[in-house]
Amino acid sequence: MAENIRVTVWNEFRHEQTDEAVKKVYPKGIHAALADHLNAQTGLQAGTATLDEPEHGLTQEVLEKTDVLSWWGHTAHGDVSDEVVRRVQKQVLSGMGLICLHSAHFSKIFRAMMGTNCSLRWREANEKERLWNIEPGHPIAAGIGEYFELPHVEMYGERFDIPTPDKVVFMSWFPGGEVFRSGCCWERGHGRIFYFRPGHETQPIFYDENVLRVITNAVRWSAPRVRMSTDDAPNVEPLEPLA
Amino acid sequence: MAENIRVTVWNEFRHEQTDEAVKKVYPKGIHAALADHLNAQTGLQAGTATLDEPEHGLTQEVLEKTDVLSWWGHTAHGDVSDEVVRRVQKQVLSGMGLICLHSAHFSKIFRAMMGTNCSLRWREANEKERLWNIEPGHPIAAGIGEYFELPHVEMYGERFDIPTPDKVVFMSWFPGGEVFRSGCCWERGHGRIFYFRPGHETQPIFYDENVLRVITNAVRWSAPRVRMSTDDAPNVEPLEPLA
Amino acid sequence: MAENIRVTVWNEFRHEQTDEAVKKVYPKGIHAALADHLNAQTGLQAGTATLDEPEHGLTQEVLEKTDVLSWWGHTAHGDVSDEVVRRVQKQVLSGMGLICLHSAHFSKIFRAMMGTNCSLRWREANEKERLWNIEPGHPIAAGIGEYFELPHVEMYGERFDIPTPDKVVFMSWFPGGEVFRSGCCWERGHGRIFYFRPGHETQPIFYDENVLRVITNAVRWSAPRVRMSTDDAPNVEPLEPLA
Amino acid sequence: MAENIRVTVWNEFRHEQTDEAVKKVYPKGIHAALADHLNAQTGLQAGTATLDEPEHGLTQEVLEKTDVLSWWGHTAHGDVSDEVVRRVQKQVLSGMGLICLHSAHFSKIFRAMMGTNCSLRWREANEKERLWNIEPGHPIAAGIGEYFELPHVEMYGERFDIPTPDKVVFMSWFPGGEVFRSGCCWERGHGRIFYFRPGHETQPIFYDENVLRVITNAVRWSAPRVRMSTDDAPNVEPLEPLA
Repeated sequence: MAENIRVTVWNEFRHEQTDEAVKKVYPKGIHAALADHLNAQTGLQAGTATLDEPEHGLTQEVLEKTDVLSWWGHTAHGDVSDEVVRRVQKQVLSGMGLICLHSAHFSKIFRAMMGTNCSLRWREANEKERLWNIEPGHPIAAGIGEYFELPHVEMYGERFDIPTPDKVVFMSWFPGGEVFRSGCCWERGHGRIFYFRPGHETQPIFYDENVLRVITNAVRWSAPRVRMSTDDAPNVEPLEPLA
Repeated sequence: MAENIRVTVWNEFRHEQTDEAVKKVYPKGIHAALADHLNAQTGLQAGTATLDEPEHGLTQEVLEKTDVLSWWGHTAHGDVSDEVVRRVQKQVLSGMGLICLHSAHFSKIFRAMMGTNCSLRWREANEKERLWNIEPGHPIAAGIGEYFELPHVEMYGERFDIPTPDKVVFMSWFPGGEVFRSGCCWERGHGRIFYFRPGHETQPIFYDENVLRVITNAVRWSAPRVRMSTDDAPNVEPLEPLA
Repeated sequence: MAENIRVTVWNEFRHEQTDEAVKKVYPKGIHAALADHLNAQTGLQAGTATLDEPEHGLTQEVLEKTDVLSWWGHTAHGDVSDEVVRRVQKQVLSGMGLICLHSAHFSKIFRAMMGTNCSLRWREANEKERLWNIEPGHPIAAGIGEYFELPHVEMYGERFDIPTPDKVVFMSWFPGGEVFRSGCCWERGHGRIFYFRPGHETQPIFYDENVLRVITNAVRWSAPRVRMSTDDAPNVEPLEPLA
Repeated sequence: MAENIRVTVWNEFRHEQTDEAVKKVYPKGIHAALADHLNAQTGLQAGTATLDEPEHGLTQEVLEKTDVLSWWGHTAHGDVSDEVVRRVQKQVLSGMGLICLHSAHFSKIFRAMMGTNCSLRWREANEKERLWNIEPGHPIAAGIGEYFELPHVEMYGERFDIPTPDKVVFMSWFPGGEVFRSGCCWERGHGRIFYFRPGHETQPIFYDENVLRVITNAVRWSAPRVRMSTDDAPNVEPLEPLA
């Protein structure tokens, strides 16, 4: 019997405590909303961690028991310690999955994994988003039709400053005239990384059926295939006799 | 008339001053050997910068006048300041070319651009290396035949912990039984990055005709196509009327 | 002094002769409009070839003197002989550039180079298209701003059945709600291939300043870096003594 | 309970009937050796098809019941009908997996999927091969160590004329001085393709434990994620009101 995939849902968890509009949509925090959903899925078990816990809740011990880490940050990227970022990066290179949601495009961990600035253009106008599924065979798109829509979102538009993704699974259309690579896959070290555009603190995006399906699929897709450090640079003996 | 490509050849420049074996091969330093060669090429002009200069010789002003930065580091990667690394990274994302040579696989700047650990296996046994040219149409391989050989090298073997390159131009064969992706291309932001395996401080690798040809080609290939910051994340107005 | 890049502009050249609406926009044919523009550019010289010429105007001799072949086909893809397609494919693999325009997505040569079906969704409603420039550093985007618009086009929407491109230079937005990978780059053998979405027989797309700029850039980008057959599979002697 | 993955092992099956050396190693044919192994694996069921059966054993009905097709051809690539090749290609684009073994690099189906010539250099000298595992996290490398060796093989060396693979899982070293991309992954349409270098008609390669493990892994990896035609190019209505 296969073991559960252990997810740690990380959340900055600041504006849910200070902003009534956010609190109203996510009373227990975005992390709780996501973890509740994931815990209801077969084969997944989710815990949470937040910025203001010691070591942001991401001790070495926690990370070693985490198969997939999902990340939401928005207003306090700079408060995340560089040491924790390095620790998370090392785990991703060692095989842990990483899912970065919406405003996490500007998180330290996403930028460290990408090597780029991850900038984009944006607008808050509660406009619609249509996400085209351009890789229907990709596991992250399982159960998603030709496209799906979100009625009210913050817009993110290109150019998105990322390395060319291995696969772009979703491409977004916005009524204001922009497009965006909204579901992007990379592999780094032995780990898999998925960036997913939807999500907002004042919109119930993380209750949307399709959004939750994609995140759930992404958890399964990014679960470790292997767990192995990439730290060693061994001095090795020749395998063949040298002249 | 096209302007010259301005190269800054960066060198740690430590073992040339302390180690007689190195000093004998590169009496003025690896940087001087490379810059001398590049300055003899049509359309190129090369300056140098070294670790122990103020700000490692890589002030904002120097970087803004640099089209392509080549990097050699070996024993003192940790002495490079994080601030200078961030400054260089920002310039690469803005369009400056970056060429990382041999032991620069473990430099802070290469790891920051890659997002991976860049580990590999290695051996110093003065064995031969044969570099197969698997992309003869690539500008970096211009003038190189089906393969070229270096008689005495330090071996680097796979697995090399890098993101899958956009193009692998050279693949190396070693008599001790290893293989290696020896000439690798990436694009990050608006900049181009080339990693080239050959090079050693106690071997005259940087006087080899083919090695110099590849480095010269890589300078031309990685010269900026555009010079434009990726820092901005503008809040934009819709281009189409919103309902 | 560099030699000119020799372009052959291929056109089906059927509906210009039978359809008044097309003839009115392209009285001498789409090929003539494109060739006239290219011949006015520094360093380029363009000839033409059409379906109803012997061997479709694409004899071995013509192809060997062609650096870049651009292709327009629409209603008569099936009339192109398989032998000529194989001949063109071989030249692309040997280093000749190939630019496929708009409805050439369904041409035999594009499908042969891609290995996929190259299907897409489409609509003729004379709607607007906005092409976002997501690779401003790419030579094909030189001189193009953040986006450009075409007032009246035939819409092409995803999913476009193509291999993941090496680079997507342009992504299109359509008011009807679709998105499209509109400028796509691949390398096959020693040759470079560019697919460009804009173009229509009853709209003056091929007189648009930005469209012509992109096509001109694509000609320069896809010009041969090397001209070398990939046919040989030589039986070779070992380079090292075998035990 | 998950259904079995249905494999069809295709074999030219000519030299096993005419050449005593081949018959001795594979008395029932290479296809039978592979199918026997696959049928002994949990969750797999394998049938066979050969060149001299009607329609080469690859009727539409057979293909529709095939999840993964493995292909061995060597001396009679030209005897495979173009119609069957098109039929197989369409099934791959619709989601069926395809595994091409050794000399199938020159098969019509592999070349049609790649769009390239797939040439390489080769030598029959019964030399050793060491396959380095450069993607230990990839499902196809599951259970394989840092490298594995085959004592007596036909050598294939670069340049291998293929589109840059999505992933190179194995890179080979040969004592005669060559290297090779020996395990290569692509996606085309909704289907997955794996090329695996090892295999020879007069060597017991297809009884080797590691080779069989890789092929078994590749079957699981390339099993359809979705089964859906890419044929349609629908004329669609706008999803948003046009002005």
